[in-house]
Amino acid sequence: MSWQAVVLTLFPDMFPGPLGSSLAGRALKDGIWSMQAHDLREHGLGRHRTVDDTPFGGGAGMVMRPDVLDTAIEAVTAEVVLPVVYLTPRGRRLEQSDARRFAAGPGIVLLCGRYEGVDERVLEARQVEQLSIGDYVLSGGEPAALVLLDACVRLLPGVMGSDDSATEESFSDGLLEYPHYTKPAEWQGRPVPPILLSGHHASIAAWRRTQSEDATRNRRPDLWAAHTSRSSSIPFQQQHGLPARSGSRN
Amino acid sequence: MSWQAVVLTLFPDMFPGPLGSSLAGRALKDGIWSMQAHDLREHGLGRHRTVDDTPFGGGAGMVMRPDVLDTAIEAVTAEVVLPVVYLTPRGRRLEQSDARRFAAGPGIVLLCGRYEGVDERVLEARQVEQLSIGDYVLSGGEPAALVLLDACVRLLPGVMGSDDSATEESFSDGLLEYPHYTKPAEWQGRPVPPILLSGHHASIAAWRRTQSEDATRNRRPDLWAAHTSRSSSIPFQQQHGLPARSGSRN
Repeated sequence: MSWQAVVLTLFPDMFPGPLGSSLAGRALKDGIWSMQAHDLREHGLGRHRTVDDTPFGGGAGMVMRPDVLDTAIEAVTAEVVLPVVYLTPRGRRLEQSDARRFAAGPGIVLLCGRYEGVDERVLEARQVEQLSIGDYVLSGGEPAALVLLDACVRLLPGVMGSDDSATEESFSDGLLEYPHYTKPAEWQGRPVPPILLSGHHASIAAWRRTQSEDATRNRRPDLWAAHTSRSSSIPFQQQHGLPARSGSRN
Repeated sequence: MSWQAVVLTLFPDMFPGPLGSSLAGRALKDGIWSMQAHDLREHGLGRHRTVDDTPFGGGAGMVMRPDVLDTAIEAVTAEVVLPVVYLTPRGRRLEQSDARRFAAGPGIVLLCGRYEGVDERVLEARQVEQLSIGDYVLSGGEPAALVLLDACVRLLPGVMGSDDSATEESFSDGLLEYPHYTKPAEWQGRPVPPILLSGHHASIAAWRRTQSEDATRNRRPDLWAAHTSRSSSIPFQQQHGLPARSGSRN
């Protein structure tokens, strides 16, 4: 049974898009996953297939109607139970653990918003999970859907070669990866760090660890703070291999 | 002069992809922006057009060569000065202010990595800016490039209609947006919040503000912490409209 990607969108032509090439594209042709993009306008109302209306309470933009979205969700989830995700800057931040969770299941339904947003009631009624891929504004949910699907598909069994699987480690210990170097050993007067040519595996591992820590501290103070608070929450005795003290000084 | 999007990739067929439809697609046809996707393999070495090699220091995966990437960057920046961005989980997090900065300039060159990563030296030598769209692992930089380009293109003059421009406010005060509601006023036994039908603009604004704060507190404790620390850094006197005290108690 293929992993099922179902997208509800006003722009079905955007799919599979980039996911039709490379590893994801080969896996799609091989039937490891399947892709359906449904046009929300098919469920639109009246002669103009209206999907949106003005917001109650005033404000700019148009809001997608709950009845239209509900019918669209019902149509794709009537026969198979899949988690429904709405991609929105209002959501919790997408993390690698979300991609792992979705990839481990039967598939996913992605609701792509356009305009100002979607009516909140359908999100409540359908228990739609709201996720954001990052703190920037997109023209709609479609590019975000491609990102989430890419993150999921590469985790499906049989999609990645063994060479690729190492990148999975990127966030495994909450630090950024170390820098990479390849041939030529000297390029434009820039040699690779000599330690990498030393053959001393322990020294190389230690150097890479330091590089990871430096990059995280400089580029991602948020990750660094989380990393150091995890380290410092380990009791002093445990950090230093001492027996735990029973009782407290005060 | 069009805003220039230049992508260096092993999969040029992925572009413009979803950016060929909807608002971005129309703007592309109208010449508001232009899109060139260059195949990195054209600059590959030898009969096999090799672009990568094994990492110095050992480890899984392949690393893209600095000489190949440098030639590719040189080829596209020889005649026009554009910022070069490499999309990588090792980068600083992409924010809306980055999209604004790039959109205000002449364009952007996006380097899309595949495999384990790219040789660090070319990033240093070319002063390449490293950005991450989020803490998840993608099959390559291409979906991230589509996201960054989408975020930039919608900000170009003439791309968005006035109705769309309101979404720009999403992160303006560091809070998530309030929930949206549209017709029907009652749907499946779920009425819209009565305040939105009251016509009292000040009450509606206050309600929306509370909703924004609640959503931010629950879904994005990181944004909420930043928001509250900004608020609490305002001196007590200023918060309460009192004259500032000269001198200190101690």
